[in-house]
Parts: sequence; C-alpha cells; structure tokens
Amino acid sequence: MGFGRICMIYFDNSATTLKKPSEVAEAVRYAINHFGNAGRSFYDASAAASREIYAARAEIAKLIGSDEPLSVAFTSSATESLNLVIAGLVRESDHVISTVLEHNSVLRPLYLSGCELSFMDCDELGSPDIGSLKSLINAKTKFLVCTHGSNVTGNVTDVRSLYEFCMANEITMILDIAQTFGSIPVDFDTADIFCFTGHKSLFGPQGTGGIITTRDFDFDIMKTGGAGHGSFQHFQSKNMPDIFEVGTLNSPGLYGLQKGVRYINELGIDKILEKTTRLMNLFYDGIVGLENVKIYGAFSESIRLPIVSLAVAGFTSPELAERLYKDFDIATRAGIHCAPLLHKRLDTADSGLVRFSFSYFNTEDEVESGISALREIAHG
Amino acid sequence: MGFGRICMIYFDNSATTLKKPSEVAEAVRYAINHFGNAGRSFYDASAAASREIYAARAEIAKLIGSDEPLSVAFTSSATESLNLVIAGLVRESDHVISTVLEHNSVLRPLYLSGCELSFMDCDELGSPDIGSLKSLINAKTKFLVCTHGSNVTGNVTDVRSLYEFCMANEITMILDIAQTFGSIPVDFDTADIFCFTGHKSLFGPQGTGGIITTRDFDFDIMKTGGAGHGSFQHFQSKNMPDIFEVGTLNSPGLYGLQKGVRYINELGIDKILEKTTRLMNLFYDGIVGLENVKIYGAFSESIRLPIVSLAVAGFTSPELAERLYKDFDIATRAGIHCAPLLHKRLDTADSGLVRFSFSYFNTEDEVESGISALREIAHG
Repeated sequence: MGFGRICMIYFDNSATTLKKPSEVAEAVRYAINHFGNAGRSFYDASAAASREIYAARAEIAKLIGSDEPLSVAFTSSATESLNLVIAGLVRESDHVISTVLEHNSVLRPLYLSGCELSFMDCDELGSPDIGSLKSLINAKTKFLVCTHGSNVTGNVTDVRSLYEFCMANEITMILDIAQTFGSIPVDFDTADIFCFTGHKSLFGPQGTGGIITTRDFDFDIMKTGGAGHGSFQHFQSKNMPDIFEVGTLNSPGLYGLQKGVRYINELGIDKILEKTTRLMNLFYDGIVGLENVKIYGAFSESIRLPIVSLAVAGFTSPELAERLYKDFDIATRAGIHCAPLLHKRLDTADSGLVRFSFSYFNTEDEVESGISALREIAHG
Repeated sequence: MGFGRICMIYFDNSATTLKKPSEVAEAVRYAINHFGNAGRSFYDASAAASREIYAARAEIAKLIGSDEPLSVAFTSSATESLNLVIAGLVRESDHVISTVLEHNSVLRPLYLSGCELSFMDCDELGSPDIGSLKSLINAKTKFLVCTHGSNVTGNVTDVRSLYEFCMANEITMILDIAQTFGSIPVDFDTADIFCFTGHKSLFGPQGTGGIITTRDFDFDIMKTGGAGHGSFQHFQSKNMPDIFEVGTLNSPGLYGLQKGVRYINELGIDKILEKTTRLMNLFYDGIVGLENVKIYGAFSESIRLPIVSLAVAGFTSPELAERLYKDFDIATRAGIHCAPLLHKRLDTADSGLVRFSFSYFNTEDEVESGISALREIAHG
C-alpha cells in the first residue's frame, strides 16, 4: 500500500493533521481487532470499548477544563455536532446572531433552521467587530453561534467578551472550536456549548468529533435508535451523552482520539501553541513585504492560529497551490475554505487564497523550504 | 495495550464482528498516517483518500449488484442511515408500514417522524406474515420500512415478494440490511433504498455505514455543511452521495470497509453463507431437543442468518450469558437486542434471550465448545 510522496511538506493541517502521534493509528488498529460493541455487553471486549470511550471523554473534558466526562458526547464530525446542536435548539421563530467568519458547517445548519439571522461584520484584517454585537440583538435573539478562530485568517475571536455579553443578555452561545481545540487554550467557561472535531488539532482520526455541554439543554431528538439500554422506551434518554449517541459508536476512532488528546494533555497546550506560533512567525517574517505577495489576517494579535493565508499576484489560488505542489512538493489549501462570507468580505471570493497551516509536527526546515518556494514563485 | 482474553470464543457477531480480515485494520492504520482530507485538494494525500473512498463505493455497489458506485453514500452507521432516509422522506401525513421484527434503529426514527404506523405481525417462529401486507395499506400508505433479516431470530424475510407488492402499489420500500449485507445475498432489485452498516458482516470498522439508492429521491436535507465544492450555495447538492456526505468523511474507516467488502467479493458471498450456515446448523443440531432449552426462530427455511437465540429454563438471559462467559469463556448477547416488539410478540420481553451469532471466522471447534457448555448448563 503505497500512496503519496514521502518527502512532501504538509502545510494543510487546518484541513486535517496528516502527522499524528504514532500511538493514534496503533490504538485504532488494536481496537478494530479487539473491541466488541461498546455499552452492549459485559464481556471483556465490549467492556474494553466502553471503558476506552469513557477515557476519551475524560481526556476531552480535561483539555477543556471540565470535571464531567459525561458532558462530552461523541459524533462523527464537527459538522454533525453543529447540525445536531443547531437543529436541536434553534426554532424558526428565533433570531440568531453569527459572524461573517463562519464555515459552511455553521452557516448551512443555520440557514436550514429557517431562523432570522444577523451577521457580525469584520474589519479588513478579518477580525470580527465584537462591539457591534449589542446593536445586532433584538427581542427574539436567542443564540450566538460562531467560530472561535477563523479557518481562513487564523484570527482568534475574543470569546470571553462575547460570552459575558451573552450571559448578560440571556443568549445561548454555541462555539465552533473545530480550529482551536488542541491548537490554543479553549476554556470551559467561554461558551454554553462547544462543537469540536477530532481529526484536526486534536490529532484523532477522521470520523470523530463531539459536543461539550456546560449544563442541561432541552435538545430536540434529531437522531434516534438503539442505545443498548432502555429499549422499551419510544426514544433514547435525553440526557448527555445518550441524546446524541445512538447506534454503534466509532469505538476504534474514539480510542485513537483518546490517544491524540492524551498526547496534548501530557505535552501541554502551551508547548504546542509556542511551537506552532514560532513556525507561523518564521514563515510570516520570511515572506512579509515580498513584492506580489499579499497576506491576510491580523498578525499583531497576542494569540492566533498557526495559519497564513495569502495571494500572489498573477496566480489564482488553485494555480499557486498547484505550482507549490508540483515544483516544491508543498501541500497547501487553495480556494475559499468553505467560508464564503469571509472571502466575499475580504474581496477574495473570485480567486480564493492559498492557506498555509502549520502543526506541532512541522519543522523549521520545512518552513524555510516554504519561504524559499514562495520567494521564487513571487519573483517570477 | 492488552485487553480481553485471547482464548475467548466470540459468538456475538451480530453485534459487531470481532475478527476481521487482517487487511482491514492495517488499511485503517495506514490511512490515518497517510490520508489527507478527501475531496478538498489535489495533492496526493488528499487524492488518495478520495480515490480509496470511491473504491469503497465500488466494492459496496459490486456486492449488491449495482453498476453505479455513486449510488452509495456513506454515513457513520446503519442507525444514522435510517434516520437520514426516514426523516428525509417520511411526512407526518404519511401512513407507513413496518413489522414487529424491527430494531429500534427503524422503530424510533419512524416514531420520531410522527407518521401513522401499522405493523405487520409475525408467527410464533418470528416469521412476518407477508400475506397481511395487503390488508395493512390504506390511501395514505407511502412507505414500507423493514428489516431484511431479524437480529433476534435470524429469520430472513422474503423481500422480493414484498417489493413486488410495493412496486404494484406505489409504495417506496426502505430496507434495513444491517444484518444481511455480507451474510447472505442482497439484491439491488429487492428494494428502493438500502441502509447498511459497515462493522457487522461487511467486516469494516465501527463508525462506518451507508445508504444505497436505486433511483433519484427528493430527500430533505437533514444534515448540511461544507462539501469542499459549491461553497457559495446555501446548501450542498441534493444529488447522491453529496446529500448525505457533508463535513470530513471517515476516510480511514471507509478504507478499512473497502478492504472488508473486497474480501467478501473475492471470496464470494456463497462461500460465506455456506460456512456460517454449516456452523449454525452444527450448533442447532447439537442443542435442539435438550431438556430445559428453548430455541426461537424458523430453522426449516432454506436461507437464514447464522443466529441461534435461546432460553434455558431457570436462567434469565443475562444470567445465562454471564454463566457462559465466566465459566466457558463464551461471549454472547443477552437481553432484547433493541427489538422490543418482537420480544413482546415472542413473550420473551421479561427475561430476554441469549443470542449466539456466528461469523465466517468462527470454527467448528468453537461451536462444539458452545454445545458442550450449553449441555452442561442445561443439565444443571
């Protein structure tokens, strides 16, 4: 089984982290060959699956600073999490505030809900205008749904301020932490509900994600089926995590996710942030001011995601990404990154941007190669 | 990493197959370390993920006898598939026919839809009364939703007859093939829509499943988000498979599933059925007529799933399963198997049944051990 080029430099970590701690894939392999169906029986293979899924909840809870592993429910992706939470809470009669920074995984479930929507604007660097929140609320405003950090610019939103405002105004805040959880500190006291993915900065496998609640919510049942207990009831329990977990869970994937998050908990999120910030700054400093290169995002902020998105004059983003890959073996992400409103706002909707996104497992040498490549391309 | 007892005899394959072809777990491990995000970029790691997911569709299509891989959409489980299909098609104003054989993954989404429901009854062996279908339809009957084979008795329903009746009466037939796909032949021309799981008889990892459509349906969008293309639209495409596939797919799991299904396609479903039927018959013949043992299900049928569910006088099903495990290292499944109506019908709702379910990877020696254990327990 041989795919891909081994020497490839991978700068598409915001799409999915390609290099994971080695124990992640090993754990998944082990689980496929040894786990029974979690929560269905008492024999060792089934109990092992249940136990390791619980341990995955505990690692997730620890990383966000919660002492309740059962406040973590697992899904197959951040997209599924956002769909379940938004469809499970938002009514057509509600007014909801979101931002122009959002990914389609936030925007589309909101459109689908039929709610009245208002969008917080951003400035030319892509930072949301938090001060405008007050002017956006009306008597029907029930929810703020927003991203913690932009998958395009890497800008991180001041969610603590947003949440304080929401609490003061009885607005439920649903936070998309697909890009931030595992990249920067995410605190349990900065939103009501968190939606995360496993396969990006948490180093888990694709096909894992989840929902973290900070208290009880009256979610509508959006997905129902067997849960291995309470089978004579017409529906599963509405308690966390049962409300979101029906059918057989992805226990191998969740065991891998447990290993990925444990790696982060043991290393410390600060170490990850320090290294990825250093790599990002190295890259930024190496290309800033280059003729023909335009960089997007707020780089003077004290904390941001390790993302540098840019355009090179004379290239559409697919052309630039293709050149980087064909001639320099560098994988990036072209296009609009499923964030249509932000690209429109930044006036980059037509040709998109090329996103360089770094991980803890990238090296300075790789970043230097990226700088050299971009210099060569930009100088024609 | 050591869990479980290596010497365990595993007879809970209807819950999940524990022993898979070795290439399944290897493929998943490989994918976690080498796949990018499918459908998002052109670089090799991303393209490899897309290619192998397509190959998984092709293997699934081949096994069911379809020549259109894109008629296969992937989900995280049969439960999710049934939820998406039922919620996406069934209206509150519809009348729907189902059967008392159903798993909660069928029953609960139907209850949730709010539709008017009628249930086809079964006889004392657990076989559905197909002849009653005609008497159940009314002017509002739009759907028949049923299982292809019972996860309790192992009885297989004559879906070809049901489908002929449905076609003649403009009823859309949605078939739950969670237990049958990979166990017995499942034919593309015996239903309109098929919902399957990956982790049982297809030998894939937990966390995989899907939907197979035989023509276009106007599904409501039940889950929406980024698809890697068409990002400026308010919703993803309603075509298969995009309608059901938003967010990052479980590409490692699907690569593993591809290997599991390929194993079946290369071996031939007939060989699997021949061996599992032989094991089941060996077990059945070894215990039938034993004092204190009551076996459920229709064993004179020409085709059935490799399942033997039974009760032993003096034991509740959890007590019997515990005895089998503690004293004989045999893993089975006690309880009501998420099939509440059938257990009520069979008058086994109170203490449940113990299910022995066999796989291609079980051996005659294991079955002989199961027979000996049951004889010893039953003779008390």
